[in-house]
Order: sequence, then C-alpha cells, then structure tokens
Amino acid sequence: MNRFFEPQSIAVIGASKNRSKGGYRILENLIEWGYTGRIYPVNPQADEILGLKVFPSVSSLPEIPDLAVLVVPREMVLDVVEEAGKFGIDRMIIVANRFSDGDAEGQKLEESLVELTESMGIRVLGPNSIGVVNTKIGLVTSILPLEAYKKGGVSFIGQTGMFLGGFARWITSSQYFGIDKVAILGNKCDLDEADMIEYFGSEKSCNVIALYLEGVKDGRKFLKKAANVAGKKPLLILKSGRTRIGARATASHTGSMSGEDRVFDAAMKQVHAIRVYDFDELFDLAKALSYFADWPSVKGERVGVVSVSGAGCVLSADAISDCGLMLSDLSEDTIKRVISTYPPGWMVQNPIDMWSAIEEVGADEAYLKITQAVMEDPEVDGVSIIFMVIPTVTEMDIRRFVQAIKVYEKPFAICFMGGDMRVVDDWERIIEEEKVPVYHSPERAIRAIGTVLRWKNGKV
Amino acid sequence: MNRFFEPQSIAVIGASKNRSKGGYRILENLIEWGYTGRIYPVNPQADEILGLKVFPSVSSLPEIPDLAVLVVPREMVLDVVEEAGKFGIDRMIIVANRFSDGDAEGQKLEESLVELTESMGIRVLGPNSIGVVNTKIGLVTSILPLEAYKKGGVSFIGQTGMFLGGFARWITSSQYFGIDKVAILGNKCDLDEADMIEYFGSEKSCNVIALYLEGVKDGRKFLKKAANVAGKKPLLILKSGRTRIGARATASHTGSMSGEDRVFDAAMKQVHAIRVYDFDELFDLAKALSYFADWPSVKGERVGVVSVSGAGCVLSADAISDCGLMLSDLSEDTIKRVISTYPPGWMVQNPIDMWSAIEEVGADEAYLKITQAVMEDPEVDGVSIIFMVIPTVTEMDIRRFVQAIKVYEKPFAICFMGGDMRVVDDWERIIEEEKVPVYHSPERAIRAIGTVLRWKNGKV
Repeated sequence: MNRFFEPQSIAVIGASKNRSKGGYRILENLIEWGYTGRIYPVNPQADEILGLKVFPSVSSLPEIPDLAVLVVPREMVLDVVEEAGKFGIDRMIIVANRFSDGDAEGQKLEESLVELTESMGIRVLGPNSIGVVNTKIGLVTSILPLEAYKKGGVSFIGQTGMFLGGFARWITSSQYFGIDKVAILGNKCDLDEADMIEYFGSEKSCNVIALYLEGVKDGRKFLKKAANVAGKKPLLILKSGRTRIGARATASHTGSMSGEDRVFDAAMKQVHAIRVYDFDELFDLAKALSYFADWPSVKGERVGVVSVSGAGCVLSADAISDCGLMLSDLSEDTIKRVISTYPPGWMVQNPIDMWSAIEEVGADEAYLKITQAVMEDPEVDGVSIIFMVIPTVTEMDIRRFVQAIKVYEKPFAICFMGGDMRVVDDWERIIEEEKVPVYHSPERAIRAIGTVLRWKNGKV
Repeated sequence: MNRFFEPQSIAVIGASKNRSKGGYRILENLIEWGYTGRIYPVNPQADEILGLKVFPSVSSLPEIPDLAVLVVPREMVLDVVEEAGKFGIDRMIIVANRFSDGDAEGQKLEESLVELTESMGIRVLGPNSIGVVNTKIGLVTSILPLEAYKKGGVSFIGQTGMFLGGFARWITSSQYFGIDKVAILGNKCDLDEADMIEYFGSEKSCNVIALYLEGVKDGRKFLKKAANVAGKKPLLILKSGRTRIGARATASHTGSMSGEDRVFDAAMKQVHAIRVYDFDELFDLAKALSYFADWPSVKGERVGVVSVSGAGCVLSADAISDCGLMLSDLSEDTIKRVISTYPPGWMVQNPIDMWSAIEEVGADEAYLKITQAVMEDPEVDGVSIIFMVIPTVTEMDIRRFVQAIKVYEKPFAICFMGGDMRVVDDWERIIEEEKVPVYHSPERAIRAIGTVLRWKNGKV
C-alpha cells in the first residue's frame, strides 16, 4: 500500500497538453502541491508538458515507477494495463468510469480487467477512482484542479471522485482542520475500504479515519479490519443507502450492495466504529476527535455548559439527554466561584446562564472566571461554551480566552448561536487555529463533545 | 394588539443620554430603522437625546402614546406603571428582568405587577422582554444596537431577548429571507404565545409563524389559537425542555413549566403545527415556506432529485425515505428527454446522477434540460437540485437557471454539497435573491421540500 500513498515516482499515462483534460490537470496539481517524487508523463504525441519531459510509451521510462495513474478512455485501459504490467509496474490507479458502474459492456470489461491484473500481480485502485491524496508528500491524482489541502490528522475514504473534488474543496475553503490522506475507492475491483482502513490505521500521521460508504465489498474482511483499527483510532462511518429507496439509488451509482441496515448498524457497534448520518456530522466529529487526539483520557461523560443565552442552556440540556450524556453536578465550591461574578441574589446551576454575570463584570471576566471554575471541577469531563456574538461580547479577546481554557486539557467546544456572521467567521478562524472545534448549534456542539468523551473513556 | 405592533406614537420611559444604556439604544434603533411614528423619550434629567425632545415625566407628554417601553430598573417598575397608567397609557413593554425569572423578591414584584396592571386595564408584554419588531413601520424596541432587518413574510415569537439580538443579527448578516414581525415574550405576566399566534395569524404581511418556546403558559388557550391559525398559515414550533434534563434547565431560565413532551407532541400534530428540533431546522423550513407561500397547491409528495454527485443521489433517497416522502416515478418521455443529454448507452432513473451529462453537453445545458424535463413530469411535485461548485459547474449562469426553473411553480430547493465556499456564498446570494431556498446538505433540502409539499397538500 505504501507505493500507492508514498510513491517515489509516478507515471501519468495519458498525460495531456490540453489544459481542460484530466491528463494535464493531474500534472498541474502534482506540481502545485509540491509532490516530492519524480513525475513521468506518458504520451506518444508530446515532448514536454508543464516543463516535464514526456515519454512516448511506458517502455521508454527511465525506471519502473512506484505508481501509475491511467487517464485513458475505458476502451484503452486493458491494453495499457498489460503494457505497464509487462514493464513491471504493479500499482495502478484507473480513472476511467463506465465499468461495473456503466453498461453491460463495462461490466464485462471490468471482469477482464480483474482477470488480467490478478494474473499479473497488479494491485488496482478503481476503476472509476480519482485516486489518492497524501498531503505529507504533496501527492494528488485529482483530474480536476485542486488547491492544496491543509496538512492534518484526518484521513478520508470516499466512494467516488465528487468527494475529493467537492468536499475537499469545501474543507479547504471553509474549514480549518487538516487532512492527512484521502483514498477514493471507485468500483473497488481490487482494493477496497477494508484495505484502506487497515493502512490508515497503521499510519502515525493519521489520527482519525472518516469513511463515506455506499456499500461494503467484503463484509467479513471489512469487520475484521475495522475491529483492528477502531480500538486504536476513531473510525467514523457515514453509510448511505440505509433505506430501501436509498439502496436502490446506490445500486445505480457504484453498483454496491448495501444490505440490511440493522445488521450493518449492529456490526458497527460491535467493532466500536462511530456511525454518523450526514456529512455535517462526519466533519463535526472528525475535527473534534482530531483536535483532541493527543489529550488525556477522561473519567466519564459529564458535561458542563456555559452559555450567554438561556435558550442555549435548555437546548444543550436536551441534547445532553438525547446523546445519553450526563450533566455535571457542580460542586458547591464551583458554584460559589461562578456566583461571585453575578449581581447579589442570583442562583446558578449547570447549564450556567451567564448573561447577568456579563452585565455585572463584563464578558471577558465572566467567560473566563466561570469557565475556569467549571473546568477545574473534578465532576466535569467536558464543556460546551456558548457564545452569541452581540455587542458587549464582541469586546472579548477570544484568542486569550481559548488559550486560557485549553490548559486544562478537558475536551471542549465553542458554539455560536446566531450573532453577526462577519464577526463569527473571524472568531471561528481564531478559535480553530487554536485547534478547538467550533459549531453553530448547541446540539452539534454537544454531540461532538459527547463523542470525544466516549472515545476518551473507552465507551465508543 | 395593534397598538403593540403598529403604534403611532411610542414613549421610551427611562430614555438615556448614555450611549451604552438600553434607554439610548432603543431611541437610536428607532431612528435608524426609520420608525414612522412619534417618539417621546422620558427622562427628568435630559432635554434632548439624538435630536429628540425629552419629556421630564409621563404626565408632561403632549398626547397619550399608543405604547410605552419601560427601560427602568425592576425596583422602579411598579411606580412607573402606575404613573403611566394614570396618564392613560394602556400598552406597555417591560424590559427589566429578575421578576419571576429571578429571586423570591422578584417573584413577589411580578405578582404585584399583575395585580396593578389588571386593575388598571393595562396590557403588558414582559417583564424580561425586549419587546417587538415590526419591519413595516421601522418599529424596534431592542436595548442592544441592531441593524435593520430585511422586510419579508416570516414572523418570530421568542422567549427572551437573545433571540432578537442574537439570531436576528445572524439572519441579517447571513440569511436572505425577510422578517415581518418579532415578539419577545419574556415572563409572559400577561400576553403570551397564544395571543401572538392569533395576532400574527391575522396579519396579511406575515406568511409563516416561527415560534421558539420553552413552555406554554395556558395549554388550552394555546391549542385553541394554534388550531385556528395553523390551518391557514404554517406554524413552526421549536420547543426546548423536551427532556427531563432540559425541563430542569427551562425552569431556571424563564420559570416555564414544560410538561410531558409526548403530550405536547400529540397536541401539535392535532392542531397541524410543524414541530422542529433545532434552530437550523426552524430557519430552514421558515424560509422555504415563506418563499413558496404564494405558489399553487400540489397533488402529492413525490420528489425528483437532480444531482451532480452520485452520493447526493443516495443521501437524498435515504432522506426521502426518512421523511416519509416518495421518489417520483418518472415517465418514459421524461427519461427519454433526460437521457438525450448523456453519452450513448447510459441509463438513468430518479434520483438522476447527471455528471456524465455534464461531461457530454456542459453544465448549463445538462442542468437546464434535465431539470426542465423533471419539472414538466406530472409525477413530480417538488424537486431537489444538487450542485457541487467545482470547475466546469462554476461556468454556469446560475441566475438564469433558477429563473427558468421557477416558472413551473413547483417547490424546489438548491443544495450545495461541498464546493468552494467563496463561490458557494456568491451563488447562494443570487439564488436566494430569487426567493429559492438554498441548503448545504441533501438531507436538509429534502426535509424542507417535503415540508412545503405537505403544507401545500393539506397533509401537515
């Protein structure tokens, strides 16, 4: 698998001078991402593309590359695989679609492809795959232009190219967490989700594995590999095709069989994978688990809530109940410290509605003193801190606050309820730069904190 | 109620020259929002604030104002109410908190307040309320600075001030739908959610009522008014304090009793209110119902899905199943029209995975022809259209596309999965300016479309 993700040399078969073709864009991406290995474009009709020397055929390459990406039409794939295989290349990414995901002819072609590659000992990612990303070495095989990702600990396994192009683009432009590796499985004629889980599980640079799946290729293998990994590293799974209607749609997308959902669900629980139900949740949990990956384990699932808004308190309490978590029972000493920031005569409990404290001592002091008191309470395992970015609150030094709260190394989330988006966007950037997760609803913040606590508590 | 929402004159008792005080900010907001009535600041120690003549006492006012907003400490509230009541003012908003939401003394004060106002025939909104908004006449009583809202059809009923200041600010800065009126109930010593529902129900400028509730003051009255309105106008209800833990938090926030949730849920179904579970869902559905308020009714709940991504198809299909909707069974003629945009040999079904059509004829033509075919199919009641803003797709003229699809007057949503946020933000603005709702996940788009179809089908 190493040669798929850390190739020292890569051949792009079907390289192109045409800027709108995948065979050009892969080269462009590799150069822009600063790929650290050697690149060999292969095309009988070109001498040079983007300053790279082009080779007329695979057999004219100066060495056997670790990996080949085939950007040729499906009709040519078998011939190219055979030629490359004879030259000695045994790791290939096949981009072309319309194999088992297409018509009867494509189905037959894929069968022939499997026969050929198995007989030649070639390992294949695809067909219908736009391949892999490894941010560590600038490796990217996308056939669409792609800005370099931020480096980080989350690795994604996706089904088709839209993930790499669509969501990755979204992560780059709107999110702050970083990515380690990406694998796009496509039709899985050879390598599948289980292989990727095993490999990502063994990679130190990856601290969270996030998987979008429409179906499992080999159930037994998948469960075995997942069980091996999910005990050591969070394994998030978004499986679509859960319902009868969804399963029918799946069949026509990737030809996957999606099986009975209850069986899948029970299996996921058994192997300690974390199941999610939409992409928002996948990213919500991935970033929290990644940010807190190196923080110490926790004792329980007792949550403290500090909120500028009473509604935030009540909605958080409902969410704590929905997620099966517990509300921390704050000690008398903590309550005493909290209440010292309020006008005389106030009572407080967890969740803490702190508006009156803000009016009394200002937002900076209220947030800091109250959250510190809560963090120091041994009855508290994790905290959700709710902001509304409104005048008074906006005067806070949010970076200083987050830095002061991080020292406790108890998982926490910052939640913004409403507020001026222009300021919220700015604060979100500051907070996430500190590797603290930000959410825009109390429910999502609690769900993330709860997942981190369960993970760090061995209860996933 | 008219005098609360369409006062021709308003007294601000406790007006202030201090820019950081609520008594200053109300005046500032009224001026900036262009309030069309007469403003009477009352303060014994000032002559002029913000160019407005200040009156030393209520009794020195040149007329009996339709409405008074009391921005005085709780200790002074009873005296001021009595003085203003004697002068003839019988509509008052009381801003001060720490009444029944505070200590025992506050509890007693609120009881005295109720006694006093009832005996004098004064109607009260509050205490612990920052009042009302009516965008039509520039009426706003917020004690925090507030940018003017966009005018529109959605009216909100909230429990405490955070809604007006926090969420409204978020709506103004990040959303495109407009607001008609807002009522903040506070402690509901007199006027409550039922009164507001009845009033908003009778207002033509309001086409959706959205309610955040921690508890119901008078269950029977609430159900009666809700039943009267919810048949004619969509009534969205977010009720927190659903769980035991949440209910405990509620009690300390607004002193509301939240009761048994299953009972509430059954009652909401009975009166045809639409229950939601978080603020995202509240806004998601409010804008869709408002945008499509004047569109014709529909025959069923059969949904078509047009998606650039196979994953979008499968996730939408799952969501259609989760929401109890149906996937449209497209006619042969529709299929034929759709397939004419694909390379030879393709098969399509609903949900339509259109990537290959985009590759064949370009994004503009593929989206337009396929969506038009789907819209024209009598088996289709509503459509979800999924975009990934990636190269190729970005070349589309999105405004022209949306305008061409709107002519069918079948409810539809645009969903963005991933993509470059900088472009997505821009497209979102263009689409929502056309009064078509945008979502960022297939699940949320389907939920919104489904709710609109049910509403227009008489099945809510």
